[in-house]
Amino acid sequence: MLNLQEESLKLHLKLKGKVGIDLKAPIDNALDLSLLYSPGVAEPCKQIFADPEKIYDYTMKGNAIGVVSNGTSVLGLGDIGAKASMPVMEGKAALFKAFADIDAYPICLDTKDPDDFIKTVKSLAPTFGGINLEDIGAPQCFYIEEQLKKEMDIPVFHDDQHGTAIVVAAGLINALKVADKSLKEIKVVVNGAGAAGIAVIKLLLNMGAENIILCDSKGIIYEGRPSGMNPIKETISKLTNKGKVTGILDDAISGADAFIGVSKAGLLTRNMVQTMNRDAIIFAMANPVPEIMPDEAKAAGAKIVGTGRSDLPNQVNNVLAFPGIFRGALDVLSTEINEEMKMAAVYAIADLLEPQELTPEYVIPNPLDKRVVPAVANAVSLAAQKTGAARKLIPVNN
Amino acid sequence: MLNLQEESLKLHLKLKGKVGIDLKAPIDNALDLSLLYSPGVAEPCKQIFADPEKIYDYTMKGNAIGVVSNGTSVLGLGDIGAKASMPVMEGKAALFKAFADIDAYPICLDTKDPDDFIKTVKSLAPTFGGINLEDIGAPQCFYIEEQLKKEMDIPVFHDDQHGTAIVVAAGLINALKVADKSLKEIKVVVNGAGAAGIAVIKLLLNMGAENIILCDSKGIIYEGRPSGMNPIKETISKLTNKGKVTGILDDAISGADAFIGVSKAGLLTRNMVQTMNRDAIIFAMANPVPEIMPDEAKAAGAKIVGTGRSDLPNQVNNVLAFPGIFRGALDVLSTEINEEMKMAAVYAIADLLEPQELTPEYVIPNPLDKRVVPAVANAVSLAAQKTGAARKLIPVNN
Repeated sequence: MLNLQEESLKLHLKLKGKVGIDLKAPIDNALDLSLLYSPGVAEPCKQIFADPEKIYDYTMKGNAIGVVSNGTSVLGLGDIGAKASMPVMEGKAALFKAFADIDAYPICLDTKDPDDFIKTVKSLAPTFGGINLEDIGAPQCFYIEEQLKKEMDIPVFHDDQHGTAIVVAAGLINALKVADKSLKEIKVVVNGAGAAGIAVIKLLLNMGAENIILCDSKGIIYEGRPSGMNPIKETISKLTNKGKVTGILDDAISGADAFIGVSKAGLLTRNMVQTMNRDAIIFAMANPVPEIMPDEAKAAGAKIVGTGRSDLPNQVNNVLAFPGIFRGALDVLSTEINEEMKMAAVYAIADLLEPQELTPEYVIPNPLDKRVVPAVANAVSLAAQKTGAARKLIPVNN
Repeated sequence: MLNLQEESLKLHLKLKGKVGIDLKAPIDNALDLSLLYSPGVAEPCKQIFADPEKIYDYTMKGNAIGVVSNGTSVLGLGDIGAKASMPVMEGKAALFKAFADIDAYPICLDTKDPDDFIKTVKSLAPTFGGINLEDIGAPQCFYIEEQLKKEMDIPVFHDDQHGTAIVVAAGLINALKVADKSLKEIKVVVNGAGAAGIAVIKLLLNMGAENIILCDSKGIIYEGRPSGMNPIKETISKLTNKGKVTGILDDAISGADAFIGVSKAGLLTRNMVQTMNRDAIIFAMANPVPEIMPDEAKAAGAKIVGTGRSDLPNQVNNVLAFPGIFRGALDVLSTEINEEMKMAAVYAIADLLEPQELTPEYVIPNPLDKRVVPAVANAVSLAAQKTGAARKLIPVNN
């Protein structure tokens, strides 16, 4: 059997990284040099100086994003720092190129101070048409994203939050069709109060969910919990758990219709699943080992199980969201990625599967399904135009 | 006749920038995704976390540089800002790729504060194996480079200073062979006290020149000049103009053997050239119009004339230096680009032309001469190894 770790190391060593620079035109002779560099290059500079928006006409900006991290929360590895986060940022950049033809530049910043991070990213703004924040620890990630969104005129998107939330929401919409339940009526338990967990809850609330309980490593989060809180958990505590249930995950899960795990391996047990409502939905997304393995969850009575793994059905993978979302945003040179655009992405992903093809093992498209990116991009660019975020208008399939 | 400005604009508009991202390996299937992204990517991350130097094995860092500007001194256009400098940074990145297969990332920083600039570039350090500073105004550029060199363990090189100085020095070495004079004995006048002028003087002094006069827009710089000075001009005033000559360029040029112009169009007149020493050498590098046109200079008695233009003989162009210098530095993962490495580049460029092939019209290689980059890279990587700057040792042609 293939040893993934070993093969991955070998391949990384051979490639020396996964992305490089591509020349859009050859520079072979004096004329090329004169047109693309000195003295010809002075002309686009002057045009942009006179009208800064022309940077989108004459430079790479309109198809370029920065994939920016400080390495404070990398994969399941935690705070391993900027250098060690580089393979992930390059990988992400490679996916942007492979899936959506976006030129994504990996940028690993050696700073853990949120205000320094914000200042640096703002400095980088002229170069890029968008910023994908990545692997930044909670709760700093919320503050960083919020500030950058306020202060920048290009899309800022923390994928660990919104990419995950969008794909979970899309999967949940379809899973609920299979289970014949409605989001408004179900009880959802989210385990993990990091970037992903918080974003999942915000999005589900926006979509109409009314009964959500959030758990972290200290148990159920409720308004006024005396310890292990932070400002974002305080906010969420007021929007969830209206019955002010206390206790641990076991107490929360009883009677739940859906479990969303963005936590750690093995945290959901068979016994817990047995206490859930009929036709339970479980997205156990801890990587590489989920909160519960699908066969166990099914044996305990769950109907629909998704994980983060490519070797199991219903892979809940951000790659279904981020390439199409940025493609759609860049196609109209959007100033932001707003809630309407995110919601458009949710439904584009969910609706790609026809109701009659949905099964408990197929509630979400395969990450390699070529239809996903164009569908998401189209929906997102339409939403950007409808909400006034688009700098330019383009024809879309409505 | 080709309208360069118009053609350049058209080409830039068509290309939407000159560089993009290149995928080093395809991502077509689930295995590619597993090896290059999750879960395989965790392995190189862990290796780098355990030993940060392994970032050179598993990521793009070892062949990647940042081409960083804040747009405060772009071409001859002045302080046009970060956005408007983007076409130049992309052009430079394209040249790095085309000439030396270096992955150079254009980074335009929206900050004019030197300390903010320094902090930001330091933050970016994990991503890159070197930093090429570009189009940053004097005197801030000196402070910025000096601080970054001190505080970073990768090469930092302000091309407007050192690239220009290296190519001027190489050309001057060969021109002196043609004129049969020695650097130690000649009188050199440098016109322009910006980044390039200062660096030219420092390098020529290092190489043994003893009689240099620097002029700026206020005239000759001498120790104690009461106005128009700054710390770097003060320093230079102590190392040059030992006779404490005062006055204007006309006064400086009388009896000079060489004129190095890094100033503005038309500042050197026929009358001034007539007062120079026999077999005068003139490098008039103002762009796009030189301080004096070669035919005029020759008519007034100059022997050897170089300019920055590709349509005239002896093109003194930085592209002869920066691709090979960074290629040589990256080949040995150098921690810096030190004086020995710069000097090695000077002689590699000069010595590419055999003494018997030198003529007044050919004292410097053509910028498109394919022999230049390997020769410079080889000499620079050898110098890096000799001076202990190299992180790794490689075989070089000695």
